[in-house]
Amino acid sequence: MRHTGIHGGTHAGRAIDDILVVGSVALDSIKTPFGEVEEALGGSASYFSMSASHFAPVRIVAVVGEDFPVAHRELFAGRGVDLSGLETASGRTFRWRGEYAVDLGHAHTLETQLNVFSTFHPRLERQHRSAPFVFLANIDPELQLEVLGQMERPRLVVSDTMNYWIARKPDRVIDVLRKVDVALLNEEEARALSGESQLVRAAGVLLEAGAKAVIVKKGEHGALYRSREELFITPAYPVTGLCDPTGAGDSFAGGFLGWLARCGRLDGPSLRQALACGAAMASLAIEAFSPERLVVTDRGEISGRVEALHRMVHFPLEPLFGPTEG
Amino acid sequence: MRHTGIHGGTHAGRAIDDILVVGSVALDSIKTPFGEVEEALGGSASYFSMSASHFAPVRIVAVVGEDFPVAHRELFAGRGVDLSGLETASGRTFRWRGEYAVDLGHAHTLETQLNVFSTFHPRLERQHRSAPFVFLANIDPELQLEVLGQMERPRLVVSDTMNYWIARKPDRVIDVLRKVDVALLNEEEARALSGESQLVRAAGVLLEAGAKAVIVKKGEHGALYRSREELFITPAYPVTGLCDPTGAGDSFAGGFLGWLARCGRLDGPSLRQALACGAAMASLAIEAFSPERLVVTDRGEISGRVEALHRMVHFPLEPLFGPTEG
Repeated sequence: MRHTGIHGGTHAGRAIDDILVVGSVALDSIKTPFGEVEEALGGSASYFSMSASHFAPVRIVAVVGEDFPVAHRELFAGRGVDLSGLETASGRTFRWRGEYAVDLGHAHTLETQLNVFSTFHPRLERQHRSAPFVFLANIDPELQLEVLGQMERPRLVVSDTMNYWIARKPDRVIDVLRKVDVALLNEEEARALSGESQLVRAAGVLLEAGAKAVIVKKGEHGALYRSREELFITPAYPVTGLCDPTGAGDSFAGGFLGWLARCGRLDGPSLRQALACGAAMASLAIEAFSPERLVVTDRGEISGRVEALHRMVHFPLEPLFGPTEG
Repeated sequence: MRHTGIHGGTHAGRAIDDILVVGSVALDSIKTPFGEVEEALGGSASYFSMSASHFAPVRIVAVVGEDFPVAHRELFAGRGVDLSGLETASGRTFRWRGEYAVDLGHAHTLETQLNVFSTFHPRLERQHRSAPFVFLANIDPELQLEVLGQMERPRLVVSDTMNYWIARKPDRVIDVLRKVDVALLNEEEARALSGESQLVRAAGVLLEAGAKAVIVKKGEHGALYRSREELFITPAYPVTGLCDPTGAGDSFAGGFLGWLARCGRLDGPSLRQALACGAAMASLAIEAFSPERLVVTDRGEISGRVEALHRMVHFPLEPLFGPTEG
């Protein structure tokens, strides 16, 4: 089934491919120097899908408890996100409580209640298994492998992970990395998994370990994409109204995969534009708590940020030294 | 006088403007995890001029002692750098001894001997006063103001500074910043001088304080240029053979001013290409101790790095959302 809802089902004359995301849907309680929220919509699959839904049809596979608010379901529905794979298990929804210090660099986790997430095993229906684009958000790498085993013939699979799994199941994290097309990591994770502090080299070590391509997310410094052949860089979109960094990475992934699904190409220029779309969506996510900004943003604002990023870095390359000068 | 030496005196049919640099020429003893050197050529004016000399004729105004090695003078001469303003004072040359820890983030100063530099007052001859492009390297802001007072009608003046002066003479640093066209600072300096931790905002505070434009150097994360109208970003050129970060900022400044003097324009696209030239030259500088790599590099290698940076960030922007889609 192609969505023909609020996304629009076509781009440049072709039907837009579906994106499947498997990850967490959570209730987050977060405090930053700019405010706090209690039991707001959170989780990797939530940020990802709110972000990607501006570009392409998104289907979520995740689990919530019986206490998951109807209002949150309606937020997804309002963005046209398919919730047929959102299982409601008996028990309470996954909860996370965290706090950021003044520099907003790192979340300090105060409490994690896995609840229904602790026994979650993703079950993919036919409409999920056939999705051409897949995001394996930060969940146990064993579950990520379970999902991969159920997929039919995806065109592009992108995975995320976190230090928690790198410390506990490094071999499984590497197994995932070998099986996906692009592995997303933040700076710390790239350093921890590779044992190399310089990021371009860290990405190189992960390629040697079997990754096809790696994206290292550098927060306010942007992101780099490295494959055996190519090295791409996007700056972060410069935000002046930073509120809550939670979900930046998943929102980045949403813009990245969203654009690739929308444009339907996986060549170098499309990948570079996808990085810029990722940076634009991450910049929106962090301007409010929860995925609020991703819900209310629109095509004009998203395009504006991608165009601004384009302007910030582009120049018509003039040869430095003419052939006849000397 | 126009140089017609190894630089070539013209670019795209026009004579290339001179660049004046006023700064330090020093003997550096440096230890990094990759090796060490004793009394190697160092100093802000040395790195700057070795870098900029690949693009345009450079004149140094600085001071050395009677012990300054002839071999070092010959390195400058070999790059066509005009040393008519390099004063030889009685006494010993400025010396710095520093060490970098494993992460190479910051130099730990072990010893600074100002020597002849402690009584230095830049005296500009006619050929210096008429230079259209000026780099006020990191010296006492009072000396930077003395130099500015002697200049005739420069087209573009760029200044650098350091935390030492921001802590001791913040008002003079601000005076300089108001009188130059572009103020270069690293991340820490931008935060210290502005009192703002987010870099884009820090640059904004400095514009409000009277700066016309600010470049914040972010080391391995590149640099951003902010004026009232514009925001440009360059990534760093990704180096895999980092050896010694000393001089990266001055080498960046050399590529930046070098390209502007060479191309003769100060418009947005030229400024963005100048940032890429800065990033390319900084990446070369840090691949060896002292300005060694800047001495032996060539036009092909420099062009190659600027072209590579261009490729890493460029994409032909495709509209995200067609006007008739929906």
